[in-house]
Formats: sequence, C-alpha cells, structure tokens
Amino acid sequence: MEIIKTIFMMQKIKQKFPHLNIGFVPTMGYLHEGHLSLVQQAKKENDIVIMSIFVNPLQFGPEEDFDRYPRNEKRDMLLAEKAGVDYLFIPDVNEMYPKDLVIEMKIKDRIGVLCGASRPGHFDGVITVLTKLFHIVQPTKAYFGLKDAQQLAVIDSLITDLNFPITLIGVNTKREADGLALSSRNVYLTETERHEAKALFEALQLATKLINDGLLESHPIVTKVTEYIMTHTSGEIDYVSLLSYPNLKYVDKIDQQVIIAVAVNFKHARLIDNIIVNQYGKIIESFQQGG
Amino acid sequence: MEIIKTIFMMQKIKQKFPHLNIGFVPTMGYLHEGHLSLVQQAKKENDIVIMSIFVNPLQFGPEEDFDRYPRNEKRDMLLAEKAGVDYLFIPDVNEMYPKDLVIEMKIKDRIGVLCGASRPGHFDGVITVLTKLFHIVQPTKAYFGLKDAQQLAVIDSLITDLNFPITLIGVNTKREADGLALSSRNVYLTETERHEAKALFEALQLATKLINDGLLESHPIVTKVTEYIMTHTSGEIDYVSLLSYPNLKYVDKIDQQVIIAVAVNFKHARLIDNIIVNQYGKIIESFQQGG
Repeated sequence: MEIIKTIFMMQKIKQKFPHLNIGFVPTMGYLHEGHLSLVQQAKKENDIVIMSIFVNPLQFGPEEDFDRYPRNEKRDMLLAEKAGVDYLFIPDVNEMYPKDLVIEMKIKDRIGVLCGASRPGHFDGVITVLTKLFHIVQPTKAYFGLKDAQQLAVIDSLITDLNFPITLIGVNTKREADGLALSSRNVYLTETERHEAKALFEALQLATKLINDGLLESHPIVTKVTEYIMTHTSGEIDYVSLLSYPNLKYVDKIDQQVIIAVAVNFKHARLIDNIIVNQYGKIIESFQQGG
Repeated sequence: MEIIKTIFMMQKIKQKFPHLNIGFVPTMGYLHEGHLSLVQQAKKENDIVIMSIFVNPLQFGPEEDFDRYPRNEKRDMLLAEKAGVDYLFIPDVNEMYPKDLVIEMKIKDRIGVLCGASRPGHFDGVITVLTKLFHIVQPTKAYFGLKDAQQLAVIDSLITDLNFPITLIGVNTKREADGLALSSRNVYLTETERHEAKALFEALQLATKLINDGLLESHPIVTKVTEYIMTHTSGEIDYVSLLSYPNLKYVDKIDQQVIIAVAVNFKHARLIDNIIVNQYGKIIESFQQGG
C-alpha cells in the first residue's frame, strides 16, 4: 500500500493508470469493519482501491466534535493495508483547504429532515469535500455505507445534478453481534449505554416485523419504534422518521421504497441507524446509482 | 466529426479513449474565428478535440438576451467540422437540466467588478454549467478566450478550489482587421456603431502606449481610456477598469499583472474588450493554470 499526502501525487495515479477501474472509499478514519467491508466490495468490483482518510472541518458545525473526533492514523494504516487498499490518501487540512474557498456549494433538498435538520451546513461541507476528493481520485465507483443513508441520498443528488462520471454504491450496514451498527463514535458510549444501544436496531427490526405483518401506515410504525427506544435506552431521541428513499419526503403510507431512520443522543455519542424497505416490506441491502 | 446529443454518449468517449488527451472548447455557438482559434490551439496540444455548443439559460439574467442570443446550428456544424473538431456535443436544455438543480454553486470573489457587477448570478450559472460539462467531457485541457477575461479568472478559481484535473488555457483575443474583438454579439451593431466599435481596442492600445511611456498610475490611465471611448463612440460606457489579474482587485499602480477592461453598451449590443499587461508593460497573450 502506498501512502499519498498531496493532491498532486494523488492525481498522478489516475494519469498513470487511465484505463484501470478505480474503486474509492472516502472515510474520516478511525476505521472499523464497516469501512473495511466497503474496501472488500470495492476490491471485487475494481482494479485498484483507493481509500482517503480526512476529517473534514467543513462538515462540522462550530458546536460539533471536530476536535475530539476520534483519530488513530497508525492503526488506520495497518487496517487499510491489511484490507488490501492500494493507495491511502491522507492529506492534511492545509493541503485540502490552503485558503478560504471562493466557490461555495450548497444542497437545497434532502436536508431539512433527519440529521440535516439539526446540522445546518453539514451536508454542504460533505458535498464540497467529496467534489474535491472525486476530482483528486477520479474514481470509477465510490463506496459509502448505507448507515449514513441521508449522506448517500445527498451524494446521489450531487452525482446526478453535476453529472459526475462515477457510479455510487451504497453498502449494507455492518453490525456488532447484538445488532449495534458499527460507528467510529461508538467508543464514546459508557458500558451501560453500549448495552442499551442495541435497542436501536431492535426497534428497526420491530418496524420490519410490523410492516411484514401488514401494517403500512407510517404513524403507528413511528410510534412503536419511538416507544421501543424510549423504553429500552436512557438516550434522548432526536428523531424517528419514516420517509421515501432516496427522496426523503414524509409519506403517510409505505407505497414506495422508504427509510425508517433513528437518531439517539447518548451522553457523549450520537448514534444513528436505519433500515430501507421497499413497498413489499423487503429490506434493501444495497444501493446503486449512475455511472 | 461526430455529433453527440446526450450526456450518456458523450461520457462514453472518455471511457473509450481513457489514455488520450482531450482538448475541450466549450462555446455558446454562433462560431467565429475566435472560437476556431481555440480549436486550432486545442488540436496542437491534444489527441482529440471536443467542442460543445450550449446556450446556457442559467447564466442569463431575466432581463438578458437568452432568447435572442444568436444561434445557427447548421453553420456551426460546418465550421466546427472544417476546423477539425472530432466530437461536437450539442445537448438541448432538457438534457442538461432535466429538473431543477438541488445542488447550488456560487462564486464569492472576482465577481463584484467588471461584468459581474451588473450581471448578478451570471458567473454562478457559468461555473455550474462548466462543472457539468467538465464531468461530461472529462477533458485534459479546456480552452477559453482571453476576451472573456473575467470568465477566465472565475474558471481559474473553480478549477483551483475544487481541484478539477484539468489544465485551463486562455487564448489570445481574435480581432477584425481594425482591431474590434470578435464576438457573436457583433452582428447586432448598426453600420455606424460597427465603425465606431474599433475605438475600444484603440483606447486599450493608447493605455498600453501610456504604460510603456512610463505612466504606471491607474487613475490617469483609466481617465484617458474613458475619454477616448467617449470621444470616438456613441455607446454608453458601462465600465473602464484597471485591476490586478486574475485576482481582479482594484490597484492604484501597475506593480503586478493587471487587466484594463472596458464594456460599452451600444443600441443592441454590449461589447467588451481588455488587455492584460504585466508590471513591465508587456502585453500578456496567453494564460495557463493547473493540470
């Protein structure tokens, strides 16, 4: 695995291998099995796999956890190499933002709900850094976890609106044995919270069961999921939402592909999870768009 | 020359020839020798030349001349083929904007002066359509006329800020025998105005002479240029500006590369022209950035 720190050197890779398919896994580091499953899939579908590690200041609000976002570069390098990453791009903040940006990118839809509602500007930062990374890496396919389903919906808009020559791949959420979705932020859970946290996925499984039993109205499903989480955790619910996917509009009934998404604030960690279900109650485990 | 109307087919060309250098000449059509000189230079420096013709509604204000912008597709096709264009991309508005964009791009600097001052949103439209076209064509080098010097400065920001893997080439302005800069809008000049219009370049030549004679202060240069145009044309001056280039900041003295730019409104045509001069009074006839 080659480690690359500059944009100049990273852009050289595509110049050197213009005919090869590049699979790209952008991350903020502190890697876990979720990231590595993206690498595995990228390896199957491409000639080269490039991973980036960059904690992007632009997507953190002033009150958010940019400074204390977990970092462990050494460990990440070992894990990336072991997973079979060919090139690891780790630029520093100055390399990515040598001066204030003159070009401003904003997304106007798919953001007033879920995490977007409480993180103004977050997804503007996401699309800006991804536009830069896409131009730097020039991938054939880009891989993201379905756990960050709103992010995936936003990137879907980015790629479609601006005609990026990139196929977007959403990969199924990796989970602990008890169902907790893997996340770099899980390290901030207390022992008790860690035990309670499995209730998020249990609540989503309950929703799936209700849908498969024939309940197709949004309101009672959302109520049951909310109650389950309130009963089984000490966390504070930010949202339990049922929306069309990837459009992210509120729907009264499950008559199209929908997402049931939850966010719960624990003492030092904000956890999110979701399931995507089609109109027949079948859980969707992958997503592909464009290219 | 192959004519391509869809984004899908256009993106296929890069996939088919990933190892070839692509020179790209984006235009709004109604081609003249200025455009064709961009093609000539692109042919020298690349394996394939792609031209696009697209009158981009997004860069016209509600009061501007989108509907009556001159168009002549048949003639353009002949001229492009004769000039040696390999692929001509002519999408219609629905192909480029099938629905309202969710992603919004804005430029915050280099726009409060020159044409940007009187065309709010114009350059936002320019950077948006170019981002799309760059993703569709995926050129190695992109060619623009120095006549649209502010546009070139804006694209310089776009490419730098967002790390497009593209070299930007500014090509010297093509002129009629009497010095009038070629423009698709020249057809809207009356016979008298056409005769007067040569005064724009004469005024800029006067500025060059003054600089070479040792006058390095902006104010008297701007005054002389303004007086010359007022005396020799019936047009209404929109601006005569002396700015650093490509930063486009007002300067008191010529102690760096500067642009002297003029815009004059005639009855049915708005003409612009400029010269770029370095701190030694030498006229700059090309511009290159990035890649």
